[in-house]
Amino acid sequence: MTQTVYNFSAGPSVLPKKATQEAAAAIMDFAGTGIGILEMSHRSKPIENMVAETESMLRELMGISDNYDIVFLGGGASLQFCMVPMNILDEKAHADYTDTGVWAAKAIKEAKRFGTVNVVSSSKADVYNHIPKDFKQTEGAAYLHVTSNNTIYGTQWKNFPEAATYLVADMSSDILSRKIDVSKFGLIYAGAQKNMSCAGVTLAIIRKDILGKVERSIPTMLDYATHIPEHSMFNTPPVFPIYVMNRTLSWLKENGGVEAMEALNNKKSGILYDAIDNSKLFVGTAAKEDRSTMNVPFIFNKDVVAQEKADELQKEFLAFTKERGLEQLKGHRSVGGFRASIYNAMPLAGVEALVSAMDAFEKKVLG
Amino acid sequence: MTQTVYNFSAGPSVLPKKATQEAAAAIMDFAGTGIGILEMSHRSKPIENMVAETESMLRELMGISDNYDIVFLGGGASLQFCMVPMNILDEKAHADYTDTGVWAAKAIKEAKRFGTVNVVSSSKADVYNHIPKDFKQTEGAAYLHVTSNNTIYGTQWKNFPEAATYLVADMSSDILSRKIDVSKFGLIYAGAQKNMSCAGVTLAIIRKDILGKVERSIPTMLDYATHIPEHSMFNTPPVFPIYVMNRTLSWLKENGGVEAMEALNNKKSGILYDAIDNSKLFVGTAAKEDRSTMNVPFIFNKDVVAQEKADELQKEFLAFTKERGLEQLKGHRSVGGFRASIYNAMPLAGVEALVSAMDAFEKKVLG
Repeated sequence: MTQTVYNFSAGPSVLPKKATQEAAAAIMDFAGTGIGILEMSHRSKPIENMVAETESMLRELMGISDNYDIVFLGGGASLQFCMVPMNILDEKAHADYTDTGVWAAKAIKEAKRFGTVNVVSSSKADVYNHIPKDFKQTEGAAYLHVTSNNTIYGTQWKNFPEAATYLVADMSSDILSRKIDVSKFGLIYAGAQKNMSCAGVTLAIIRKDILGKVERSIPTMLDYATHIPEHSMFNTPPVFPIYVMNRTLSWLKENGGVEAMEALNNKKSGILYDAIDNSKLFVGTAAKEDRSTMNVPFIFNKDVVAQEKADELQKEFLAFTKERGLEQLKGHRSVGGFRASIYNAMPLAGVEALVSAMDAFEKKVLG
Repeated sequence: MTQTVYNFSAGPSVLPKKATQEAAAAIMDFAGTGIGILEMSHRSKPIENMVAETESMLRELMGISDNYDIVFLGGGASLQFCMVPMNILDEKAHADYTDTGVWAAKAIKEAKRFGTVNVVSSSKADVYNHIPKDFKQTEGAAYLHVTSNNTIYGTQWKNFPEAATYLVADMSSDILSRKIDVSKFGLIYAGAQKNMSCAGVTLAIIRKDILGKVERSIPTMLDYATHIPEHSMFNTPPVFPIYVMNRTLSWLKENGGVEAMEALNNKKSGILYDAIDNSKLFVGTAAKEDRSTMNVPFIFNKDVVAQEKADELQKEFLAFTKERGLEQLKGHRSVGGFRASIYNAMPLAGVEALVSAMDAFEKKVLG
């Protein structure tokens, strides 16, 4: 019997089995056309319909109203770090950014090329172990930028701040994991390779009234206004990554939508955080009130494991879990230790297997 | 028995059966890891190795020397229309562009945002039915831009012009279809979805000495120098489209490489052009000396089919060929009629089936 593998990768990451099976089947024959999805013109009806259906499922699942446009782009969320200010931050204007992690800091760095950026809060000095929520917005800021979930540090905005104008959010690592009120946001963007699809497509949800207000000339491909009227078909879009998103959203709908997923994510992360809090060997690294339901970093308790033994024991734990089919648990180098990414598609059984392995390892080490 | 389908789509387009089968299999389990390729971290060894192997196969197949860097990017060749001048055309400098089709014209439009563009030749007035080869380069031009093959019009540079400095080429629709001397080019870019992979990845081949010479500040993601030292892993690359490229290149190597492919492409296109030239019903639209080996547009002979009957007969021909499993033969609206795209992965049997259907249809119509 083959052992079940649970993939705790931070991204690209686990996808619903059904979605990947459907994607693989479509490569050999898409929608009974006799042509595989990789080989089909993006201007063909089956592909146009598929992209439209993907948009429509997103609208339904997230509750996105008609005063928002949706586009599917290439280049990753990192390209959005410059596209966002290029499109909505005028040279003489200013915007507020919250600095809650390395990706937030990258967004800040890019935005500074286009206008004035006020970093209104930062937890950088604490290795981003919490979300700094006590800050003042700048008078007249065009928007307030947040990173909804910080993959590396395992922190998450539980309640989004009220923006004086509107929020702009990078939701790459927790989109579709919980209900959000889209109407508070002017723009939401997200790389798809964590909760939505494989790598290669980035989603942008844009409130209709925020565009067309900057004076600069924007290169055609970097202008949201190019892609919106063309329904992401101005040029050849990343068809297959959009299809994997389509199948993932369909799976999400069949499994109760975002509401059911949020309950399951709370349950899964709850079990794991309880195990960490009840452990003598492991401790969490993020402030409790900001703990992410998506990424759970943990390290050895320094009072129990001496610094000089930590490296060796870390390798042992990774080998111990790998033997049990628990993969990709190594922590990010800036936090160290371990990280379990438990996105929507991670089944409860995977988290239970991890908790049980942590317990067994602790007994082995501490007796 | 299921009928064989031949897909003449202009792009995304037919891929080698073996490559698509391998890609579909990797979705369920990549390289024996128990994890599918869509779900695997781009920073994992199997993916890093796969991307490095893809680059190395490209170098071997195209004869790319070490003084060129290779990067895999998102956003399509259309994004390169602005990235190219952003990276190598200074604001006070000028570059020469040849206008041989709609895509060339789009490249020209974007380049104008960044410096002075001299359109040194154009066949626009003739609906781009030929490659205008008689032109003078501008003194001191930074580079000379060409579109190696014009997908819509079925024209192709058979011999590239000698650039005073270096050539920059959009090779989206004929890369790897014939031997080229890379050393004449400073930069080659190509969307993958015609001869190399599915949609979602764009290749750029950049001579090392041409970068770092413009004064403007370039957004991080749009700067080739960001991606080069990171081997396309600065952010999450479009992993799966790169893997489809990997499998397609492997197939190409197994089938004799670019040299064998060029001979086959000459044979395939030769058979089709001969059929057109010997037909009373069909005529080609491109100048004979510039005929593409990749895209073959043809229309009804106006002396034989009256204008008012052309639309109806066109539908008949498309239905007639579709019945025989010959798909996607409708021509682009700007040329009309029909277009057979016969990229590397189109087997000789597909072209023979088309020629035979054309002959049968002609007999049916003309008796």
